Amino acid sequence: MELLKDRIRRDGRVLGKDILKVDRFLNHQMDVSFISELGREFFRRFKDCGVNKILTIEASGIGIACLTATFFDVPVVFAKKNRTANLPDDMWMSRADSFTQGRTYDILVSREFLHPSDRVLLIDDFLANGHALSALIDLVAQAGGTVVGAGIVIEKTYQPGGTRIRERGVRVESLAQIQYMNEEQGVVFCPSDSAL
Amino acid sequence: MELLKDRIRRDGRVLGKDILKVDRFLNHQMDVSFISELGREFFRRFKDCGVNKILTIEASGIGIACLTATFFDVPVVFAKKNRTANLPDDMWMSRADSFTQGRTYDILVSREFLHPSDRVLLIDDFLANGHALSALIDLVAQAGGTVVGAGIVIEKTYQPGGTRIRERGVRVESLAQIQYMNEEQGVVFCPSDSAL
Repeated sequence: MELLKDRIRRDGRVLGKDILKVDRFLNHQMDVSFISELGREFFRRFKDCGVNKILTIEASGIGIACLTATFFDVPVVFAKKNRTANLPDDMWMSRADSFTQGRTYDILVSREFLHPSDRVLLIDDFLANGHALSALIDLVAQAGGTVVGAGIVIEKTYQPGGTRIRERGVRVESLAQIQYMNEEQGVVFCPSDSAL
Repeated sequence: MELLKDRIRRDGRVLGKDILKVDRFLNHQMDVSFISELGREFFRRFKDCGVNKILTIEASGIGIACLTATFFDVPVVFAKKNRTANLPDDMWMSRADSFTQGRTYDILVSREFLHPSDRVLLIDDFLANGHALSALIDLVAQAGGTVVGAGIVIEKTYQPGGTRIRERGVRVESLAQIQYMNEEQGVVFCPSDSAL
């Protein structure tokens, strides 16, 4: 998606070889009208899939998921990291390592909000090692629901998550795919935006 | 706001005297078209205040803030709890106790995203003891910006946060104000939705 790649070139900042900071428009300060355009693109790609629910994970996925959901007119469920005092006992639970935070989280969704009849679109900002996305897929599987696909804003294709998730048979649509990056050259995108 | 009070009566669940679970539509599963109506109401109340930025706090404020921002056509900044590996050193920082999680958090916003020229609308799902909201006000003050007000979905008026924040001179608009609640009677709202 050229709009996104242009924005990453303009406002993204590469730290070392692994960190792409997009906090000017995506995951700290959020350019809401821009993110709505990303949501419109997810809708274009998944609109014929019978999506009845969008599942994401706190925190940075939530805004993207909500703005995407306005096109689908479906509810968003966001998975929680850790257990908090007023969450019910009756949860689906999976586990994920966080690359950015260097720790492992329990990923939880109330059983009340994921059902066998659900056709779920997963939404997240980044796909790198795929731990968070795998955890979301596991939660839907536990509930007996169907994952219709995953809409990712930025995929780091040099990390194994995208390949692993696609090998599980899940359709992954990434709006920008990074081939590699470093501080000298900045971000180098894959030749095509299409699914690898 | 009657639409919200009706929804709380229908889908909210009271646990003990202090916990109102609204996870069916507001802060775990999110009814996006409903929350957009809350955003429209925040816009109606604050549209003449020159708002150029919405500030909220992860996680459950983010979706509400983003859907509200679509009416104002301004960016959202969400404050982060704790410090993560790829946040910059250059942060505004405050501190807040979490009622639901029983711990204290550092509340952080990059200095890049809050400026003296900012006219900030604060958005959050709950106002009870006011610790999170106070932390957000402090962050804006550190940056030299102006808080034009706070838009709160549900205020527990029997807890001291609302009074304390208003005594600081901040306009607080809560879409539903709870006078008291318990498992027998459910939620009892204040006679008027207007600011106390």
